[in-house]
Amino acid sequence: MADEAPFQFLHSELIQYIYKSADTEDTENGRNISKLENLGCRVGQGLIERLTKDAPRFKDELDIMKFICKDFWTCLFKKQIDNLRTNHQDSQFRLLSHLSAGKQYLDYAPKYLAFTCGLVRGALSNLGLRSVVTAEISDMPACKFQVLIQKM
Amino acid sequence: MADEAPFQFLHSELIQYIYKSADTEDTENGRNISKLENLGCRVGQGLIERLTKDAPRFKDELDIMKFICKDFWTCLFKKQIDNLRTNHQDSQFRLLSHLSAGKQYLDYAPKYLAFTCGLVRGALSNLGLRSVVTAEISDMPACKFQVLIQKM
Repeated sequence: MADEAPFQFLHSELIQYIYKSADTEDTENGRNISKLENLGCRVGQGLIERLTKDAPRFKDELDIMKFICKDFWTCLFKKQIDNLRTNHQDSQFRLLSHLSAGKQYLDYAPKYLAFTCGLVRGALSNLGLRSVVTAEISDMPACKFQVLIQKM
Repeated sequence: MADEAPFQFLHSELIQYIYKSADTEDTENGRNISKLENLGCRVGQGLIERLTKDAPRFKDELDIMKFICKDFWTCLFKKQIDNLRTNHQDSQFRLLSHLSAGKQYLDYAPKYLAFTCGLVRGALSNLGLRSVVTAEISDMPACKFQVLIQKM
């Protein structure tokens, strides 16, 4: 648990920092989400470059998605994503696990997902795939990531 | 190397993010340094709480400093600080190792140290020690941290 703690705490404080200076208005919230997403994207780009430095070339999209769900996710969260084939579900998403499980904090959850959506988008973009990544929570701390690859 | 990569990339992007919106004036630079230091402080507070959760009570200040230089530093940078007793020198400070070694980037280096100074200050404050933590670089990527414990 301690291994990924610096990253988790830094992620939390980053959200605090970005939201602190902002209004509570909806437009501002949207802007913060996209700031977080962009930041995540750049981190994902750097990270995938480091991780694939000595990796063999990927065969196809499925091969890339396997790498994201296994190696990339493990580097970040010390576990691979649970449900690889269907919808990339993580039943114990680490960046949500410090929030109380239950419906009352469901409104606060999206801001804890934006950064990670960006991470995946950034990683894929550096592997040559343009994508839209969204996340949805039905039951905390389980979280479902949806990756839509855009054909060029 | 990959283990601490998410933290390192996030740290880099955080600096970019904080500096991006700012002027190049000296006062603004000072304010950014202190934003980074404060952010580090809160991360340090959270982290030390997690790390000392099951640790026995510390005997004295030296005991605390040993923990910071060994366990705390290892959790963050996967290695302990090199020169424990004298001046807490890290001859291969990880958050500087991506900058080119040499004199030409020496001016840019302080912003890569502020967050870490805050980390140490936050950790110490949660262990009951008020401190001033500064860092100095003479020869990149070596970095010397000075911790001044303030008597209450």
